[in-house]
Amino acid sequence: MEIVSAREYVINNLQYAFNPKSIAIVGASRYYTKVGYKVIEALNTWGYRGKIYPVNPRATKVFGLMAYPTVKDIPNEIDLVFIATPAHIVKSVLEDCVAKGVKIVVIATSAFKEIGRGDLQDKLTQYCRDNQLPLIGPNLIGLGSPYLNFNCGFIPYLPVKGAVAMISQSGANLLASLGASQKDRFGISFFVGLGNKADVDFCEFIEYANRDAHTKCISLYIEGIDCPEAFIKTCQNATKPIVAIKAGGSAIGKKAAFAHTASENLQTSNEYYDALFKEAKVIRVATWQEFLDVSLGLGMMPPLKSSSIVMITNGGGSGLLSCDHFERCGLPMRELQDISAELAQRVKAYMPMFGSSLNPVDISGTATPTQYKGAFTQALRDPRVDGVLGSICPTAVTKVEEIIDIVIDLHKTYKHLNKPFIMECQGGEECQRAIYKLRENGIPAYGTPEQAVNAMIALYKYYNIKR
Amino acid sequence: MEIVSAREYVINNLQYAFNPKSIAIVGASRYYTKVGYKVIEALNTWGYRGKIYPVNPRATKVFGLMAYPTVKDIPNEIDLVFIATPAHIVKSVLEDCVAKGVKIVVIATSAFKEIGRGDLQDKLTQYCRDNQLPLIGPNLIGLGSPYLNFNCGFIPYLPVKGAVAMISQSGANLLASLGASQKDRFGISFFVGLGNKADVDFCEFIEYANRDAHTKCISLYIEGIDCPEAFIKTCQNATKPIVAIKAGGSAIGKKAAFAHTASENLQTSNEYYDALFKEAKVIRVATWQEFLDVSLGLGMMPPLKSSSIVMITNGGGSGLLSCDHFERCGLPMRELQDISAELAQRVKAYMPMFGSSLNPVDISGTATPTQYKGAFTQALRDPRVDGVLGSICPTAVTKVEEIIDIVIDLHKTYKHLNKPFIMECQGGEECQRAIYKLRENGIPAYGTPEQAVNAMIALYKYYNIKR
Repeated sequence: MEIVSAREYVINNLQYAFNPKSIAIVGASRYYTKVGYKVIEALNTWGYRGKIYPVNPRATKVFGLMAYPTVKDIPNEIDLVFIATPAHIVKSVLEDCVAKGVKIVVIATSAFKEIGRGDLQDKLTQYCRDNQLPLIGPNLIGLGSPYLNFNCGFIPYLPVKGAVAMISQSGANLLASLGASQKDRFGISFFVGLGNKADVDFCEFIEYANRDAHTKCISLYIEGIDCPEAFIKTCQNATKPIVAIKAGGSAIGKKAAFAHTASENLQTSNEYYDALFKEAKVIRVATWQEFLDVSLGLGMMPPLKSSSIVMITNGGGSGLLSCDHFERCGLPMRELQDISAELAQRVKAYMPMFGSSLNPVDISGTATPTQYKGAFTQALRDPRVDGVLGSICPTAVTKVEEIIDIVIDLHKTYKHLNKPFIMECQGGEECQRAIYKLRENGIPAYGTPEQAVNAMIALYKYYNIKR
Repeated sequence: MEIVSAREYVINNLQYAFNPKSIAIVGASRYYTKVGYKVIEALNTWGYRGKIYPVNPRATKVFGLMAYPTVKDIPNEIDLVFIATPAHIVKSVLEDCVAKGVKIVVIATSAFKEIGRGDLQDKLTQYCRDNQLPLIGPNLIGLGSPYLNFNCGFIPYLPVKGAVAMISQSGANLLASLGASQKDRFGISFFVGLGNKADVDFCEFIEYANRDAHTKCISLYIEGIDCPEAFIKTCQNATKPIVAIKAGGSAIGKKAAFAHTASENLQTSNEYYDALFKEAKVIRVATWQEFLDVSLGLGMMPPLKSSSIVMITNGGGSGLLSCDHFERCGLPMRELQDISAELAQRVKAYMPMFGSSLNPVDISGTATPTQYKGAFTQALRDPRVDGVLGSICPTAVTKVEEIIDIVIDLHKTYKHLNKPFIMECQGGEECQRAIYKLRENGIPAYGTPEQAVNAMIALYKYYNIKR
């Protein structure tokens, strides 16, 4: 249901969604294959430190914890109620929550507006609004934060700690980002699935993320924006970069998006969303991989001031794919000679005679850690250079680990110069490990040239947005 | 140097490059950090079974093997000579090779045309042509095949066995594909870096790959095509799909491509290459990830006959990203009702009430292996369906391993129906393992929706090329 601006009572109470001292799980189940069991299991597995109250009128114990017939029967205060009961019971649970003075509710249950029960969903939403009880959902998968060991939902992973707030209407795609966190060290500050977002809206999560100390990039997977005015206003006022991927724009996707999260796209178009994101100062991306890559970069690096980017690589091929992609994305690289003639001379000290001091700078397949160090140092220190893209293409003589350690050291040393430093490592398992280590040390690192370039481009877009 | 068509003596002798009974390494080194040592080490490490003859006038033994002052001093027949000496010595080595009756030479040495020594390179090439001694290179990284445990060059990985012939002008990008093979189970039939390709040309490797029993897809990383006529003729006559990524098209990339592999792009444009690939019936891709993904798909699956594709997923979000991307790529998905009304009814048996039988078919986050099996079986067996895209988005209740085993079984059962079956598994480490297992069993599997769609689109393009 539409709102015209982010509501302060909602934003305030979101702290109880992400850091609750006590949680009641309504629909808690004794059967380990059920959602109502998995939620409690996950809270325990990942180390939630607050109190958990299972609610189940037909059980006295669930997961070894005392169960209560209703929320009202719980003898202590409840911050968050997580509802996983059939849809027709939800209304009475909400009444109990209001009576109990609960701070916020999450409705995981499906089968509301997305299957034609818009009236029921609206009635529940209005009830919550009348009682200033923020409602997240319905039809969602869960939420949590690695900083609090908090994993609340039917979610098989807790992500690694990082700077990206992941706010997703789709449960599956939220899980994809959490899975990427596990397998690719994609750091996340907090995460939430919004589902049908009947009450609490994108704008309120965005504002919460904007105030959150761990968040440096706000990332949105969107199927439909119901409150464009509130969305634009909130995004415009945010002090952090915002990235969005909008799905459900194709002819067949519009129907599927409604069936999925009751998102209404029939009156909109891709161009509508392009204009909306532009006005909101949100960086739009097209594919899921780009969404993750750009988010990671924006979460770790400062904005890029100009196209004065130097790429340093030991592989001419990675250099070519990169400079082609820069041009394809509308930000062609410049020749090193034109950026800094001095630097073009200096880097020659760190390459063999068949290397190249054009841009990309090719220090060649035999490049040693010392040569990498020299070339990177010169580029980072040169005041005419605004961004550095490093690439490692391991040959049989490349010492990947030593080079990575140098990169981490240099990043610490020259961080104060405030220029983006992005790495690309294209190879096998040693490169995968290198990417992990770089990411753990705050350096965006990727497995293909185009991914690294996409991150650099986004940092340039963000510079122009801020300006 | 230009040729007008693929030369039969060259194609014939390429068997000695990929399956030599004996190799001489000229420039073999006693020092384990040198290229001339690494080559011999790699041959041994990966299990080469032929004879190795180090050539070094200042050593009697290298890597425990007897060394010879020159190629002519070796008492036995030599199939392949791998040259890693400084550029000015190469001519005399070639003379020895001709005198010795060597079948083929590979010149790894750099510092020829790419640094302005075009005359020297041309002279060597003419000498080899006059003597019908095919020359691969110069300025390259190596070549090999996992089917023969053959890794010849300064290459840190031997790829896993598969159907893609990887023919790359760039050493770094060749290594990237071999690294992807190691870390992502990207299967390769044989691989070669071409470098400056002074003599042996793309067309000759393409024709060799076309005749190679293990190869089902021919993949080309190109910086410049010197012999367009021969290239087009050979590709047109090939009976296998050919994928190409062309780098060095950007303004700055044209210079870099010359500095890298002496590729001449100043007179060409992206449009020129678009037209060339179209005439040659080659599928062109833009990014490195797409290059790998599309190659894998074409190597494993038959062509896709029409847009009658059914997607089956347990995650609405993956479905939306997929159908949006199909439309973006010019092949919009059709509603299931319009493809097969019968199937639209039948799949309802395998989903809860809040699932969706539109296309993508959303069997919902609670989907069991049995539901997956039922929905896949119905889609694969329906004669009105030409392609099936499956997606797994693991929630806490998803049994990924069981579903994967079902997919592998179904693929075996219905392979004779000759329709592409592609999988997408978006999640954490369990999905990574699932992708490995699927790939090892001949099913193209990917980590994001757009990658899977790109593969499906390429199979449709190939259908139209064949027609």
